[in-house]
Amino acid sequence: MNSNQIMVKMVLDRWNGQIKQFTTALEAYSDEQLQKEIAPGRNRGIYLLGHLIAVHDDMMPLLNLGSKTYPEFNKLFIEESDNKNAKMPSATELRTIWKKQCEEMSKKFSALQPEQWFERHTNISAEDFVNEPHRNRLNVVIGRISHLAYHTGQFILIK
Amino acid sequence: MNSNQIMVKMVLDRWNGQIKQFTTALEAYSDEQLQKEIAPGRNRGIYLLGHLIAVHDDMMPLLNLGSKTYPEFNKLFIEESDNKNAKMPSATELRTIWKKQCEEMSKKFSALQPEQWFERHTNISAEDFVNEPHRNRLNVVIGRISHLAYHTGQFILIK
Repeated sequence: MNSNQIMVKMVLDRWNGQIKQFTTALEAYSDEQLQKEIAPGRNRGIYLLGHLIAVHDDMMPLLNLGSKTYPEFNKLFIEESDNKNAKMPSATELRTIWKKQCEEMSKKFSALQPEQWFERHTNISAEDFVNEPHRNRLNVVIGRISHLAYHTGQFILIK
Repeated sequence: MNSNQIMVKMVLDRWNGQIKQFTTALEAYSDEQLQKEIAPGRNRGIYLLGHLIAVHDDMMPLLNLGSKTYPEFNKLFIEESDNKNAKMPSATELRTIWKKQCEEMSKKFSALQPEQWFERHTNISAEDFVNEPHRNRLNVVIGRISHLAYHTGQFILIK
């Protein structure tokens, strides 16, 4: 393995491990449990699930891997906070989307060559990237690993 | 920047960002608030603080950067779960230790050359490392970023 391959493996292994941890917790909950709050007055499980789907959907254009599949989730699960009166997809629908999204992301990630992970993401210009080469695709994944871990720590608190 | 420098910057920037997020939350809490649970029947803030100190202390021998400073924290904050009757250092003491530990880790991390981050950690033999070069020091930090983010997501739930 060359050093790019090693680094990509380190980051994608951690991403996959974090996805697996969340998925395992998700599968252990009933639809009813997903309606519960992680702590009194805090987000419900179903909101966190929708929030993660929306944030991961946003990664696609950011990584230059395609357009968003669920653009309508942005308002519901990112801009707006959890609201029991909001019209949301059902837990069953969100579970199906989560599974499908994870599979599609995994496919797209595997198809990238290691050196392509060090290309710029779409939120930085070619000009700025010359001086800030760390603002690459792989760095987006590092940031989202943190984000996913943060919410997984909360998600597992549902009783 | 060469590619090793870029990768190390990506990971250490994220580590520092995560440390900063936890520290900001910690400083916003009173000692009294740290005695509260993150959710009913779950860990108290003070336990999570001690747990993070213990896990970060463990990183020193694992990264081959020295021995542990608080070996007695292992039993109290890793092996054992939170227990209101356990004899624990005070919130004030743990705050001081957290701050000092962050400073010392930052100094040690900065002193390493980029290529040294890709050397093996101490939980893998030189023999195995030949075939598993991703099991390096930088990978330990990637794992601990997830761990810290996971517990930060919980820590911010204290009211």
